[in-house]
Amino acid sequence: MSTSLTQSAIWQELGHHQAEVKAIPLRDLVMNDPRRLEDFQLSLEGLRFNFALNRIVPKTIDLLTQLAAQQKLEFARERMFCGEVINISEGRAALHTALRQKKDRPIKVDGRDIIPDILIARLRLTRFVDEVRNGYWKGASGEAIRHIVNIGIGGSDLGPRLATRALSPFISKLNVHFVANADAFELTNILANIDPAHTLFVVVSKTFTTQETLLNAHMARQWLVNKLGPQAVAQHFVAVSANQAEVEKFGIDVANVFPIWDWVGGRYSLWSAVGLSLALAIGMENFEKMLDGAEAMDEHFCTAPLAKNMPVVMGLLGVWYRNFWATKAQVILPYAERLRDLPRYLQQLEMESNGKTTTQTNQRVDYATAPIIFGECGTVGQHSFHQLLHQGSDVIPADFIGICEDNLNKPQHHQAMLANMVAQAGALAFGRDNATDLHNACAGNRPSNLILLDRLDPFCFGMLLALYEHKVFVEGVVWNINSFDQPGVELGKELARGLEAKEAANTSEKVFLTRLFKTVQTPNIN
Amino acid sequence: MSTSLTQSAIWQELGHHQAEVKAIPLRDLVMNDPRRLEDFQLSLEGLRFNFALNRIVPKTIDLLTQLAAQQKLEFARERMFCGEVINISEGRAALHTALRQKKDRPIKVDGRDIIPDILIARLRLTRFVDEVRNGYWKGASGEAIRHIVNIGIGGSDLGPRLATRALSPFISKLNVHFVANADAFELTNILANIDPAHTLFVVVSKTFTTQETLLNAHMARQWLVNKLGPQAVAQHFVAVSANQAEVEKFGIDVANVFPIWDWVGGRYSLWSAVGLSLALAIGMENFEKMLDGAEAMDEHFCTAPLAKNMPVVMGLLGVWYRNFWATKAQVILPYAERLRDLPRYLQQLEMESNGKTTTQTNQRVDYATAPIIFGECGTVGQHSFHQLLHQGSDVIPADFIGICEDNLNKPQHHQAMLANMVAQAGALAFGRDNATDLHNACAGNRPSNLILLDRLDPFCFGMLLALYEHKVFVEGVVWNINSFDQPGVELGKELARGLEAKEAANTSEKVFLTRLFKTVQTPNIN
Repeated sequence: MSTSLTQSAIWQELGHHQAEVKAIPLRDLVMNDPRRLEDFQLSLEGLRFNFALNRIVPKTIDLLTQLAAQQKLEFARERMFCGEVINISEGRAALHTALRQKKDRPIKVDGRDIIPDILIARLRLTRFVDEVRNGYWKGASGEAIRHIVNIGIGGSDLGPRLATRALSPFISKLNVHFVANADAFELTNILANIDPAHTLFVVVSKTFTTQETLLNAHMARQWLVNKLGPQAVAQHFVAVSANQAEVEKFGIDVANVFPIWDWVGGRYSLWSAVGLSLALAIGMENFEKMLDGAEAMDEHFCTAPLAKNMPVVMGLLGVWYRNFWATKAQVILPYAERLRDLPRYLQQLEMESNGKTTTQTNQRVDYATAPIIFGECGTVGQHSFHQLLHQGSDVIPADFIGICEDNLNKPQHHQAMLANMVAQAGALAFGRDNATDLHNACAGNRPSNLILLDRLDPFCFGMLLALYEHKVFVEGVVWNINSFDQPGVELGKELARGLEAKEAANTSEKVFLTRLFKTVQTPNIN
Repeated sequence: MSTSLTQSAIWQELGHHQAEVKAIPLRDLVMNDPRRLEDFQLSLEGLRFNFALNRIVPKTIDLLTQLAAQQKLEFARERMFCGEVINISEGRAALHTALRQKKDRPIKVDGRDIIPDILIARLRLTRFVDEVRNGYWKGASGEAIRHIVNIGIGGSDLGPRLATRALSPFISKLNVHFVANADAFELTNILANIDPAHTLFVVVSKTFTTQETLLNAHMARQWLVNKLGPQAVAQHFVAVSANQAEVEKFGIDVANVFPIWDWVGGRYSLWSAVGLSLALAIGMENFEKMLDGAEAMDEHFCTAPLAKNMPVVMGLLGVWYRNFWATKAQVILPYAERLRDLPRYLQQLEMESNGKTTTQTNQRVDYATAPIIFGECGTVGQHSFHQLLHQGSDVIPADFIGICEDNLNKPQHHQAMLANMVAQAGALAFGRDNATDLHNACAGNRPSNLILLDRLDPFCFGMLLALYEHKVFVEGVVWNINSFDQPGVELGKELARGLEAKEAANTSEKVFLTRLFKTVQTPNIN
């Protein structure tokens, strides 16, 4: 049974159009159009999106925006920004954009304007961040805080972790550490290098029942209590959560619980109090600049015509390759060590948001949805998997991310980074013919985007993340899926709970898993 | 034009067999065979490879080993271990296995036994490692060394970096830091936290001309000279290289150059002096145990019958999915924070080794070769991209890697790790039917391997890496490609050199890239 999407005239036309474009090598597209570099570039303040090295002609963008129009992208966008219940499976809005909205426009959830809630929460955040950073907040032994340990997983970890590294030149006064995994190794290592008197734990969990986060929070609590006694907990733990009751049970003062709302998904929550550890690291002024950058991208996304709209074009190019060129993956190549965690962050953002095969109307899709996202910092990846990008079996579209500014004043290093980035994009696009020596030939015709930040500061970083958020949204709208839930992860959680609780197995599969669980707990050699 | 591989009877038969197996849900395979868990498991000392959750029946292994036999796997294996020139494009042997060979068997390269060279080099390594670790080696100001900074990229970084983290409980006396990227951020950060008097730089580059490594080595040299003067270089820099002339020019004493040979590829070189920083961290005794573990796997690979041979079965399962199920990727899921860098290491190992589409006889392949390798530590990935593994468009075979031993004595954490790992494998394999609510249904039938280490110690770790090395070799032999060169990376290097040297552009592509290079160097907003 085919969906209305694949039956639509524009979808069919894009299929025919792909065959036309496929016949033209990327080299010829470049050769035949001296203005291609400029015409296929969109700019917004300190961020440029260059898509000249894609397998497209102007008509492609035209057809793709027609597809977006057919899928009612503008209507969907409007609904998201206004707080409509677009996450239908969970009956929720998706209002990460409200978290950075500076203009005076009420946004209602269940009839109630949430903007005042956001502002009050940010005010509380600001007061707390200033207090800790200025040393007014004291630990149980009267000392100022020097170490922050963020305990959270998934969206409560990946965003703050990425941002803290990306914005590390803006960090002052405090050291921030991140713990996510159920593996105690991560927390053990951190605790070995800090002392409780100067440490503040930030426990981030919407439900305050996340297994990994609670395991680590309790381990941290025990460590603190062993050294400073049970009274110390309130001065060394704060929480970001929607479950005040559970947080209180843990021993955290309700005055030190920062809110997170059910209209923000974990992977979109950096802009809320989930970004607390980041805010503690870089200060609220920088945190606000990051929000401003994201808001600038929101504004662009809401107002620019589809064909001149960065997240729209980027998302539609994602659809173009995934659905009309049958690509399976997208590689993320930030040429910046500070963006080392970006591929991991985008893995969650895109694969969790759009890794689904059921439409909003409970129909099985008959087209591919989210690709695999993977990546590595340039130039490191060049000495690793780029071999496959150039000569492997499959075409993998690439996003290159470059930083113009040499903030370290190391011109040789900086020039090497940028030259290599451009050269890789060129080698992928143009390849090298070698009819007699196939072994050294590169096929070329492998597309890439280039995202250029003037500098890697809070504002540009905010723009970059919002760009990807909206790109993922655009894809989700075209694919008619709910980008804001994650139903596929429940089954694994259930099975794990059953195994840990030693539940009786009632199916042959569970019998098998119970035996397997016993096996993995027993060494081979005793 | 089709290759003899795809024309072969066994290849065709595997195609028919796939259709038969596809008709049987994984659930039924498990239900119908109470001994499946044990029958599809291979063990070697402290390592087990369980492949019960694959879409296979016993006949599958039988057919796949016939394919291996047809591709002369045993002959190829023999040729590799004996030092034949199997890397034909570069005219070299591939003798990483000789580096860990403990038995008394000469291996000749160009008529000369290399085993004495290896032993002498290891003896020199041992003496040096002991000297530094025991504080006999003094810096220019008479102080013992406390910090090691490894400067290398690709194979000179990924292996030592992975191993140093994986074996961190075995580290004593010295702190080891790794610098790879041309981005000066990485080295700048490290230098900010160490002092030159206690620091030894280990510069690792076979040619000693690798751009990134030389940039960083010169930056480190300048930092040292600024503080301790030019005479200090010899006491604070050692090298692992095959190019003594260049190393001497840099100012490193020839007595402190450790050899690397052209019969070891970068991505297979951890076992040589390229592992120096690791050896400094964990001591030679532990380093030798790692070699012993790898040798145990070599021995198994050389002697076990194909159907009972771990790397063979693992490699053939890779071929099974890639070529007969058209999978595009393989996800690596180590349930151990200490193996966080394993996916990155395997990206290089597999994608650089087998990301090629030209056969050994200079013919274009008509079958898929290396898949995309990506991954993340469990349980972290569960809160990120596992949504797509369970409900996404494409089937992605998974390797789960678990550790039996709870070396931190944190039973709750440890049990959570193992239960989640088993549960994820189960959820992928068995899925969940839900005819009325497609949205919550999981398709299941998604295969996985389970690799279990009794403990994550040097020996088991050595086994694990050797297992993957040989798995990649097996795939390369079946695909009839050279797994030991990397011709696809040259074009990018050439283009980058041209851009940096401001070479005149002689083609329209180069004109385009030159303009693009200018663009990326100029901010959008001035």
